[in-house]
Amino acid sequence: MDDQLRRLVDRQAIVDAMHAYATAVDLNRPDEQVEVFTERCRVNYGAGDVGWIHGRGALLETLRVALAEFVATNHRITNIQIDFDGSDAATAVSSVYAWHRYADGRPDFHLFGRYHDIWERTTEGWRMSERRLKVAGAIDGPDAEQLEPIGRNS
Amino acid sequence: MDDQLRRLVDRQAIVDAMHAYATAVDLNRPDEQVEVFTERCRVNYGAGDVGWIHGRGALLETLRVALAEFVATNHRITNIQIDFDGSDAATAVSSVYAWHRYADGRPDFHLFGRYHDIWERTTEGWRMSERRLKVAGAIDGPDAEQLEPIGRNS
Amino acid sequence: MDDQLRRLVDRQAIVDAMHAYATAVDLNRPDEQVEVFTERCRVNYGAGDVGWIHGRGALLETLRVALAEFVATNHRITNIQIDFDGSDAATAVSSVYAWHRYADGRPDFHLFGRYHDIWERTTEGWRMSERRLKVAGAIDGPDAEQLEPIGRNS
Repeated sequence: MDDQLRRLVDRQAIVDAMHAYATAVDLNRPDEQVEVFTERCRVNYGAGDVGWIHGRGALLETLRVALAEFVATNHRITNIQIDFDGSDAATAVSSVYAWHRYADGRPDFHLFGRYHDIWERTTEGWRMSERRLKVAGAIDGPDAEQLEPIGRNS
Repeated sequence: MDDQLRRLVDRQAIVDAMHAYATAVDLNRPDEQVEVFTERCRVNYGAGDVGWIHGRGALLETLRVALAEFVATNHRITNIQIDFDGSDAATAVSSVYAWHRYADGRPDFHLFGRYHDIWERTTEGWRMSERRLKVAGAIDGPDAEQLEPIGRNS
Repeated sequence: MDDQLRRLVDRQAIVDAMHAYATAVDLNRPDEQVEVFTERCRVNYGAGDVGWIHGRGALLETLRVALAEFVATNHRITNIQIDFDGSDAATAVSSVYAWHRYADGRPDFHLFGRYHDIWERTTEGWRMSERRLKVAGAIDGPDAEQLEPIGRNS
């Protein structure tokens, strides 16, 4: 296949997997959510260098607890930028707006962030080996000042 | 044409039509909005199994009334996932965030939902034969509890 | 290369540049933001026919001042519709939701708008020769009534 066509096809496969992740979160299906990752992935939800979650198993436990706080969420993925590194790896940056409604009735949490990902072609298709959330800001919810910032110039 | 290329071209045509729908809504042009559908379409804006609107004519009347409530809207379509069923049909799921400002000054209505669509290749291009809105949640506006939910695990 | 493939590749290049613009804004890097434009571009942030900014240099100065008002922003680009005019030019319309947090603690400014762009193929890649923001509405922030509207039917 033509290289440029292959790249577009690969790009679409990665984008589809990003959206499968968001669908799984919003339906509270952490078991499907972790399938987007490699078995030995590492994931960081804004905790900075000390906050890595290692492996699908630990990620599943973290997500189960985290998602149980909410009765509804909506993760909106836009501004997807993908850079390929050879034919079987890619880095991706995307913009996420995540709306969260708490089970306990607290005000809705609105998160504006960026996902920094590493994607790999595996025998089962493209999977994430790393996702790192950086935070532009938030409305209500946990103190966004505590989360890793996107690095805006002041 | 190569099958993979054809699929990408078809995918883009469907995405373009989804955006044409949103543009038409936000410009309050229901006559253009219904052109994205097949003549014999059915559409359901969260009303569940009993709430289908049948055909372009009925849809146009519904939209005219519904859009007159607002002075401004913004329909933001993201997370588009398309599955082709052969070469001339596809199902699509997308995520919509719709901001609505009422003509009567009520607080803005923010809707977080998912469109579940069936698309068909026609002689005029790709058209929707079915759109079904499911709702993740809302801020203000009509009681989202009454609308068909996306089916999140509790 | 096949014409349809070339169009998809060009389309992706323009989309990538739109996202590079948003990334640069949100990181407060106006020097990178203006690189998405041609040297002799013109840009209009909702000021209507009298409000054009001419050229990269003037744009840079405008952006430096404007972005200094905020401690955080998030520019979310969706609903991208691109029409090619021959092989080296295109018009594009996209939908932007821009969240702004002020440095002085005023309530967050939420803008719902549409970018109307002209893109050109240059020796450095696709660049914008024109961007015109039209506004669907806003929450807080500057008086949206003063900004050029998207032209919704009343």
